Amino acid sequence: MNIYRELAPSPRTIMTPGPVEVDPRVLRAMSLPVLGQFDPEFTAIMNETMEMLRELFQTKNHWAYPVDGTSRSGIEAVLTSIIEPGDRVLIPIYGRFGHLLHEISDRCGAEVVTLEKEWGTVFEPQEIIDAIQNEKPAIVALVHGETSTGRVQPLEAIGKACRELDVLLVVDAVATIGGVPVKTDAWCLDAVIGGTQKCISVPAGMAPVTYNDRIEHKIAARKRVERGLRASGETDFPNARPQIQSNYLDLGQLQDYWSPARLNHHTEMTSMLYGLHEGLRILLAEGLPARFERHRLNERALVAGLEAMGMSLYGDPSCKMTVVTCVTIPDGIDGESVRAMLLNSFGIEIASSFGALKGRIWRIGTMGYSCSMKNVLHLLGAFEGALLRHGAKINAGAAIAAALDVYEGSAKTAAINA
Amino acid sequence: MNIYRELAPSPRTIMTPGPVEVDPRVLRAMSLPVLGQFDPEFTAIMNETMEMLRELFQTKNHWAYPVDGTSRSGIEAVLTSIIEPGDRVLIPIYGRFGHLLHEISDRCGAEVVTLEKEWGTVFEPQEIIDAIQNEKPAIVALVHGETSTGRVQPLEAIGKACRELDVLLVVDAVATIGGVPVKTDAWCLDAVIGGTQKCISVPAGMAPVTYNDRIEHKIAARKRVERGLRASGETDFPNARPQIQSNYLDLGQLQDYWSPARLNHHTEMTSMLYGLHEGLRILLAEGLPARFERHRLNERALVAGLEAMGMSLYGDPSCKMTVVTCVTIPDGIDGESVRAMLLNSFGIEIASSFGALKGRIWRIGTMGYSCSMKNVLHLLGAFEGALLRHGAKINAGAAIAAALDVYEGSAKTAAINA
Repeated sequence: MNIYRELAPSPRTIMTPGPVEVDPRVLRAMSLPVLGQFDPEFTAIMNETMEMLRELFQTKNHWAYPVDGTSRSGIEAVLTSIIEPGDRVLIPIYGRFGHLLHEISDRCGAEVVTLEKEWGTVFEPQEIIDAIQNEKPAIVALVHGETSTGRVQPLEAIGKACRELDVLLVVDAVATIGGVPVKTDAWCLDAVIGGTQKCISVPAGMAPVTYNDRIEHKIAARKRVERGLRASGETDFPNARPQIQSNYLDLGQLQDYWSPARLNHHTEMTSMLYGLHEGLRILLAEGLPARFERHRLNERALVAGLEAMGMSLYGDPSCKMTVVTCVTIPDGIDGESVRAMLLNSFGIEIASSFGALKGRIWRIGTMGYSCSMKNVLHLLGAFEGALLRHGAKINAGAAIAAALDVYEGSAKTAAINA
Repeated sequence: MNIYRELAPSPRTIMTPGPVEVDPRVLRAMSLPVLGQFDPEFTAIMNETMEMLRELFQTKNHWAYPVDGTSRSGIEAVLTSIIEPGDRVLIPIYGRFGHLLHEISDRCGAEVVTLEKEWGTVFEPQEIIDAIQNEKPAIVALVHGETSTGRVQPLEAIGKACRELDVLLVVDAVATIGGVPVKTDAWCLDAVIGGTQKCISVPAGMAPVTYNDRIEHKIAARKRVERGLRASGETDFPNARPQIQSNYLDLGQLQDYWSPARLNHHTEMTSMLYGLHEGLRILLAEGLPARFERHRLNERALVAGLEAMGMSLYGDPSCKMTVVTCVTIPDGIDGESVRAMLLNSFGIEIASSFGALKGRIWRIGTMGYSCSMKNVLHLLGAFEGALLRHGAKINAGAAIAAALDVYEGSAKTAAINA
């Protein structure tokens, strides 16, 4: 028999686009003793989490709760619950995660129409609106922030057009929620999916979602109570529309579990919910505006440092996402070797990239608890050291100075405004 | 803005059929700092978890890993990955969770044939074998331990018949794994799904699964690499068979993520995996035979106590599952009021029941970390007190004495054998 040792993970400074570092208060909450799923103390925590999620999503929607799985489980839950076989779904793609929306919609039996944009840029809203008018989809599914390219797609005009044209708009805000404004109601987003392990800084494992009554209406038409829970007399198909093809990700049934009916579905993930509750509590205590500003400030310092060093950034700067910075790997430098040195010698993790960008860019995240002056300065010093060690021609000593200038300038401004 | 308070769950003695109490060592492991998903330290933990799961499932299968969701996500992952639309699936049902297998198979497009048995009993293996011979299904899906009725279905003869008749056998061992023997290889089970929050005593959130090459073969025929990750030249449908309808629960893609290829899929649930790793480590250090014996001993003591008190047990005793004990609610006693008193005054949770049994039985779990002499004695004392307070006619003072007799007798036997 093998003897397995106790876990002892090395301390890491995680500067990837997720998973990122977790506030020790969240980890502490996750180590609290469990409660039963129908214990009134536990259902009160469920309800409070829903309230906090509404604030996070900036919505008055009734439905705002986590799906029990990692981010893409939330995306699939929304899409599989609303896409009926043959539904026309328009998917504008400007990076890897647009392809994931395509992949999932495909499997739901959608008739998918895609619109592709060169990686490193985003769409002009009018391009998408024109496509909606031409293609007449029932649903538009769109990524808000593409971690693969570090771009953010403006949504407001698209949301308003969808509402006007009576098209459902589903937004993957996994990368942005909690770090970049996501205004569900003001932008007319019908369903929004977030992730825990990025700007919310809770371990991967839940996918907070919110959706309005336009979505709920579509779900209601396909809803059925689970076999084994139906009252006698309830028929198999009370509704005319085709059933939702997943049981685990059926939002109609999840709703009943998150409602006062508490109709048995899965067993809620106790410890993950504790973590999400604590993460949201910390996030709301900081306040959304202050939190977004913190993400902008650290990004400015990071970018100033990288540019002072002489690195060039990838992608169209006009649509750069604050929480991910993509850096072009200099000619002649082995990107994976630099990443390995950062991890093994400095205890810092940054990310590689996908598809055509593989080997061409590094991706640096400044998300949630990882998004701090301490981490940015640590990274810039380490990055400079590792690049010099790899023979890169960069300006030594300039990066940290430039970042410090940003932080000191910001402190001065704050003092003046105070 | 609302001010949300820090979580402070009350201490609970959880004697339900799950979720149950969690070993503090597991909770401590869950509070360790996170690692990135492709950090070599983290992938080493993934590999070690696979090794331990093979021991738990008593299998030489290569594939043994957790699906990132609660138990039913693992059930759906297996069924949706192997059921092609129109596949004939035989589902013998003897409780609520058999209906769940029906529900899920239905949504995968199966042609389902059910076989129903009165609740409180299980099938004679020959009944199922006869049905296989008559109905000629491609797949049989069966619950090993029904928490709804507290029964356990013998599997060995059914497994051997399925192998002989070339039928795939999928077993829901969510309730039994880690508390009752589950011999994947010896019983010829093709796929087995476990749950974390019952006898493994890890918080809800993962569904360990294992499957053999017969299942893998079926998956391989439907496998496709995800859009956005495909090398150019790879076609949409390299295989002839219909694609798997879920992306999140596609075992073909999960396999690639759990293989050395580490093909990006979801972001593994770091903290849940830490918890599972620690839970398995504790479980294997205790040893499966000792663990099963502990569950039997505490059940004997619980049953002796309940019977001495004058309570009657529900269901056919010949197929009683050790880890769940169903107690008939005496005439004139309000079952929910007793449960509420146990929770609110004694801090003990026991379970109510489903469907036709609602209001007729209580269900008491003795699972994993909750399965201890301390808890059984606490429960018996509290149960007696609450029942007397509700005016039930029971033998006062007899329950704990009877349970102590069992524990002392067992200690004597152990001393003689030592």
